[in-house]
Amino acid sequence: MRENTIRNIWHSGGAVINGWLTIPSPWSAELMAHQGWDSLTIDTQHGLIGYDAALPMLQAISTTPVMPLARAPWNEPVGIMKLLDAGAMGIICPMVNSVKEAQAFVGACRYAPLGYRSAGPTRAGLYGGSNYLQEANTSVITFAMIETAQAVKNVDDILSTPGLDATYVGPTDLAISLGLRPGGPLDEPRLDEAIQKIVKSCKQHGIIAGIHTSSTSDAIRCMERGFQFVTLLSDTRFLADASSAAVRAIRAGHVTPSAAGTPY
Amino acid sequence: MRENTIRNIWHSGGAVINGWLTIPSPWSAELMAHQGWDSLTIDTQHGLIGYDAALPMLQAISTTPVMPLARAPWNEPVGIMKLLDAGAMGIICPMVNSVKEAQAFVGACRYAPLGYRSAGPTRAGLYGGSNYLQEANTSVITFAMIETAQAVKNVDDILSTPGLDATYVGPTDLAISLGLRPGGPLDEPRLDEAIQKIVKSCKQHGIIAGIHTSSTSDAIRCMERGFQFVTLLSDTRFLADASSAAVRAIRAGHVTPSAAGTPY
Amino acid sequence: MRENTIRNIWHSGGAVINGWLTIPSPWSAELMAHQGWDSLTIDTQHGLIGYDAALPMLQAISTTPVMPLARAPWNEPVGIMKLLDAGAMGIICPMVNSVKEAQAFVGACRYAPLGYRSAGPTRAGLYGGSNYLQEANTSVITFAMIETAQAVKNVDDILSTPGLDATYVGPTDLAISLGLRPGGPLDEPRLDEAIQKIVKSCKQHGIIAGIHTSSTSDAIRCMERGFQFVTLLSDTRFLADASSAAVRAIRAGHVTPSAAGTPY
Amino acid sequence: MRENTIRNIWHSGGAVINGWLTIPSPWSAELMAHQGWDSLTIDTQHGLIGYDAALPMLQAISTTPVMPLARAPWNEPVGIMKLLDAGAMGIICPMVNSVKEAQAFVGACRYAPLGYRSAGPTRAGLYGGSNYLQEANTSVITFAMIETAQAVKNVDDILSTPGLDATYVGPTDLAISLGLRPGGPLDEPRLDEAIQKIVKSCKQHGIIAGIHTSSTSDAIRCMERGFQFVTLLSDTRFLADASSAAVRAIRAGHVTPSAAGTPY
Amino acid sequence: MRENTIRNIWHSGGAVINGWLTIPSPWSAELMAHQGWDSLTIDTQHGLIGYDAALPMLQAISTTPVMPLARAPWNEPVGIMKLLDAGAMGIICPMVNSVKEAQAFVGACRYAPLGYRSAGPTRAGLYGGSNYLQEANTSVITFAMIETAQAVKNVDDILSTPGLDATYVGPTDLAISLGLRPGGPLDEPRLDEAIQKIVKSCKQHGIIAGIHTSSTSDAIRCMERGFQFVTLLSDTRFLADASSAAVRAIRAGHVTPSAAGTPY
Amino acid sequence: MRENTIRNIWHSGGAVINGWLTIPSPWSAELMAHQGWDSLTIDTQHGLIGYDAALPMLQAISTTPVMPLARAPWNEPVGIMKLLDAGAMGIICPMVNSVKEAQAFVGACRYAPLGYRSAGPTRAGLYGGSNYLQEANTSVITFAMIETAQAVKNVDDILSTPGLDATYVGPTDLAISLGLRPGGPLDEPRLDEAIQKIVKSCKQHGIIAGIHTSSTSDAIRCMERGFQFVTLLSDTRFLADASSAAVRAIRAGHVTPSAAGTPY
Repeated sequence: MRENTIRNIWHSGGAVINGWLTIPSPWSAELMAHQGWDSLTIDTQHGLIGYDAALPMLQAISTTPVMPLARAPWNEPVGIMKLLDAGAMGIICPMVNSVKEAQAFVGACRYAPLGYRSAGPTRAGLYGGSNYLQEANTSVITFAMIETAQAVKNVDDILSTPGLDATYVGPTDLAISLGLRPGGPLDEPRLDEAIQKIVKSCKQHGIIAGIHTSSTSDAIRCMERGFQFVTLLSDTRFLADASSAAVRAIRAGHVTPSAAGTPY
Repeated sequence: MRENTIRNIWHSGGAVINGWLTIPSPWSAELMAHQGWDSLTIDTQHGLIGYDAALPMLQAISTTPVMPLARAPWNEPVGIMKLLDAGAMGIICPMVNSVKEAQAFVGACRYAPLGYRSAGPTRAGLYGGSNYLQEANTSVITFAMIETAQAVKNVDDILSTPGLDATYVGPTDLAISLGLRPGGPLDEPRLDEAIQKIVKSCKQHGIIAGIHTSSTSDAIRCMERGFQFVTLLSDTRFLADASSAAVRAIRAGHVTPSAAGTPY
Repeated sequence: MRENTIRNIWHSGGAVINGWLTIPSPWSAELMAHQGWDSLTIDTQHGLIGYDAALPMLQAISTTPVMPLARAPWNEPVGIMKLLDAGAMGIICPMVNSVKEAQAFVGACRYAPLGYRSAGPTRAGLYGGSNYLQEANTSVITFAMIETAQAVKNVDDILSTPGLDATYVGPTDLAISLGLRPGGPLDEPRLDEAIQKIVKSCKQHGIIAGIHTSSTSDAIRCMERGFQFVTLLSDTRFLADASSAAVRAIRAGHVTPSAAGTPY
Repeated sequence: MRENTIRNIWHSGGAVINGWLTIPSPWSAELMAHQGWDSLTIDTQHGLIGYDAALPMLQAISTTPVMPLARAPWNEPVGIMKLLDAGAMGIICPMVNSVKEAQAFVGACRYAPLGYRSAGPTRAGLYGGSNYLQEANTSVITFAMIETAQAVKNVDDILSTPGLDATYVGPTDLAISLGLRPGGPLDEPRLDEAIQKIVKSCKQHGIIAGIHTSSTSDAIRCMERGFQFVTLLSDTRFLADASSAAVRAIRAGHVTPSAAGTPY
Repeated sequence: MRENTIRNIWHSGGAVINGWLTIPSPWSAELMAHQGWDSLTIDTQHGLIGYDAALPMLQAISTTPVMPLARAPWNEPVGIMKLLDAGAMGIICPMVNSVKEAQAFVGACRYAPLGYRSAGPTRAGLYGGSNYLQEANTSVITFAMIETAQAVKNVDDILSTPGLDATYVGPTDLAISLGLRPGGPLDEPRLDEAIQKIVKSCKQHGIIAGIHTSSTSDAIRCMERGFQFVTLLSDTRFLADASSAAVRAIRAGHVTPSAAGTPY
Repeated sequence: MRENTIRNIWHSGGAVINGWLTIPSPWSAELMAHQGWDSLTIDTQHGLIGYDAALPMLQAISTTPVMPLARAPWNEPVGIMKLLDAGAMGIICPMVNSVKEAQAFVGACRYAPLGYRSAGPTRAGLYGGSNYLQEANTSVITFAMIETAQAVKNVDDILSTPGLDATYVGPTDLAISLGLRPGGPLDEPRLDEAIQKIVKSCKQHGIIAGIHTSSTSDAIRCMERGFQFVTLLSDTRFLADASSAAVRAIRAGHVTPSAAGTPY
């Protein structure tokens, strides 16, 4: 089966720099796959992407060696299994708040006897290789999102779920759940405390810690704090921020640093 | 009929700051429509966009007051008329190299007796208003691209075509046609000479000058030189440049200036 | 955040006249948005519309001030949350038969601490405004469908669910559940009795009453009886009924009243 | 090959009642195919429909015995041939203004030696039958649109083109070309005179006369005047007119005649 | 209502030869509908097909008398009901492991009082006929997949579920569940034993036995053993196997038996 | 720039075995790209594929090293240039009947000074590499279809067109043009004579000869006769032939040779 290079990076102690796709377009997906990310996650929860839009995006990422992941729309087998059959090499699952929910999630990603994933990797077998059914259970990566106060409370139980590979912190939902303003700094004390608890629990259970960040400084700081899977913003945010900054610069008559080369 | 606000800006002596859409997605189109551009051009020539993809993008732009334009795939009536019927408020036509070609282009944008556009503004009538058939001839904007040595030579003839509103300089094709390296600076002497000739001819014929630029500095400089319609890069380029810069920054451990706020 | 004008109409004591979209097309959606409806509901339950088709329809409605709503495919968080993130300003939820189901539904529409909606309003934030996360809980409208005998029995409990704004009566399912012929008159005694009970309970709990009707006379009568949210037929039904009537008229040689103007 | 039932109706002296599709949706196409039309024309000129949208619409019509036709986007081989290969049983060609243009159009619809249509009826062979290549030349129907003053002037020449089966009058473009207000009555003297000339020429050359109408009364009157192919309005117009009339009726408190039955 | 011809074949003691669709394309669906299958199943579980892709495929099958079925993505009401409303004449439901799960599945396919299917057969009513609501409960076919050791154990209970029409054996999942290598022969003793138990239970309960096979010999053998619903491979497998065999033959210089006729 | 491996095969004296795509689906395209073909041609002329459908198919092929080609819809710049910008590494152009038509075709594929292709390789630059503009003129392959009696007559002139790389014989159209039954054998004397003339002229002008075949035996024979680019059938034909043969075999009770392995 095709090597899951995310596991290689982790085994060597490195951190995966992950891009985030919310635009329902195979072209923007292919474009993002050329910008240096180690992996790209198609967000079918908050991204504007349903299954029929996600499929050609998974193909578009596969034009490169970048690892394709997907955030499932919810902790339910139907969405998870369809994304895996379409070739996602890992699933980020939202709102995993208890060990029972973690088991349901992991089970949906694993063939029997480890789980209850149904066999039929129509595209995954083509993309992943002919022995997909034999190796998928050890290759496909499972990320449980820790993004509520309840999940933080239960984190040690959740992280002891067999077959769980990683967590993924969603700071916006976690902040709201903690009664904080969404979009605030990661080092807000209560948020920081929760995140530290998650990282510590990850280390104890041999689980990889992942997180969504909204600045390069946060991304770098999180890597320094032990996160080995770090996402920065999203395609939507890059496009909006870069283009609005340019328009403002032109209107102000200010020259901004900009790319050279052909304008197409 | 809905006011074509591009004409208002021009009448007041201002310059239109135009965004450029090459991603075939109504979501990226709607997103771009919120970033401060005066108009957005759906590029159905070099953009990855056919008619069936362009239609919902025109709708997406219409969620805002931003003026929707389209670059036609080629100087042919079929593409031009379908984009107008779908609600484009102006057409940028590639490769207009002679007065005959200019007349063919303008005629496709005007109802009789000024041209040969066929009547059936299915969406344009809904978006533009019930008197669309009466007012479209004076509202819809025609841009002829001047992008070959031959076109520069013929520029005075081309710009005397009745019903032509504006030119649009394509520096990449023009540079290639002049035997220059594509993607070089706008002030390369031969390119600069050609552009100056176009601008001068525009002034003489009361035609608006437009241009595609690849940096904020070029955009500003072109506005200073009299261009009243200036495009900067494209959605594809903004997304690629901003995301690759961020990845490089993270890998280098360098913090870059970045947007605050929620990461979705 | 963008004003939810449905609430304004209700606050002034008026009734919302709602259109119903079942054709999976952004064009028919935009067209319907110009016909005078106060709101339009994209039916992702019985309409022929999945998420990927619903998204550009929400954009199409947003080209006008008409309020976009959606009927969720089922009382499940995944469908509800994705429609809200895509910009629906309210959700009509099918088959709410108990207070527990009502709570599950309402919770999916509300951010913590009022519910468990996950934060990531990718398009809703753009369409709704930058303070969407702060105001969505009081702006987004929740409609519970009362369409079974069981739901009628439990209606007082259901309507006491905190955060529930409105009910929506589905007469076809309700008739079937009551053992009646579907498609019969609203004043069939048992159906009428059930509807009266719902309206009465709405008044007691300060909940808006809504209903789907199949004739202008039913729509008007329901408004007179206190319904403040009334749907008439659907795009599919209007298109089928109007075109088949015209064909029959031509074949019979009978002239029918018809629209003047251009035939496109 | 599948019988082209339009020819049967004509042979028996009858008139074809044709529906018009401008909504890019296979569902609205299938729905229209159940409303009693003899044929349905997918309008890829002014309809909001490109090739990729037209294909599943042709399939949708084929769920019924209704004959599928298409209006080509323009008098060019590429659009015409692709629609025929996709299964259209006839082509309505816009803007045929001279015998040379008529020959170019007809030639694109006929295999050698009668024309220059390229062989590859990928779907047409499946839908039409295995002997499609042998019989298409005598089955596929060619309609030349007569919609300019120039075309009316040249009508006798145009109608003498071998292989041309029918004309199709476009009253809106014809009115504009004659210097009249578009959307006016068909019996406006100058328009009426042109139409009479076309009908007379059709009779002389054994060509079927067709026309687009905008009321049942016009449709009936045209049939009485000898038109054997009559279109009424379009899906877009039926949907807009019927729904806006209903909304106005509700707001006025007036009951309108309306369909009985289930409201889905 | 349109006759469900699958029931006719069964009533006459015959076996239904079923094709399997995993390519998300209405064209490949229409093509398959012309190859001699009695029914075609759109696989929305392991096929690369979400709801928005399945809809035009159901239309494409309806261009022929072949019966359209669908495999639901999972045993959940939302997917099942939407496929039925879109015109599927039967549902194959994955992973039915207990009588409770069987009841949930069957209930989603039946209107009250037999189940809890919600009424709104938008396309099913058009395709199936105007009395669809009255007759669907006895026409629509329910297939429960027996594909785990647990399901085999519970098979007698499962098959006693009122309203269940048929089983469908998924040999790959069943083999995995039994601890066998997926893709092995059907006569592997443990797999064979499980299958025999299912067939025997079917006979006892008057339930039709169905199975997925991967060779014509298996298909024939299963029909001889009493299976009355037999699927062979899938569109994806036919395309891959036939084309790779041809390429190998050309490279080897070996002539293979091949179809005559035109190469389009 | 990415190497055009077709040129490598030719340079080594080998023949390219080319697959043919007519199903408008990125999944069937990706699947075909795994079956051993050297190149795959997306047929936008007779295939059921417009530009918006072709784009994700080009991406799907790019998940493998198989070379992506496209048949243009017609000898017109708009279709040719858009397919090249989307990443096609060569164009097969239909109906090239004269040297003038050959020059028009080749010119559309070459940047100045060799032709008039407009610069803007939005996807081609990403897929092909950053020096695409510099190298495309020598990498992109031009195939002129010789498929009429007129083209055979003019073949020596056509093949002397600078920048033309290859011919592609379309036997069906050529047979019709010669007054033969389409779909007959390649060795029918008049067809054979024409083909021999083409091959001979190719050798004289250093042009590669290509052809579409409908059996492995024809493919092999053509390679023996000097054709270095040979297509066999199409995805549509493989799917139809293989599945109908299997259904017939089951109905006849005959076992056919069939693929082993898992049935998904």
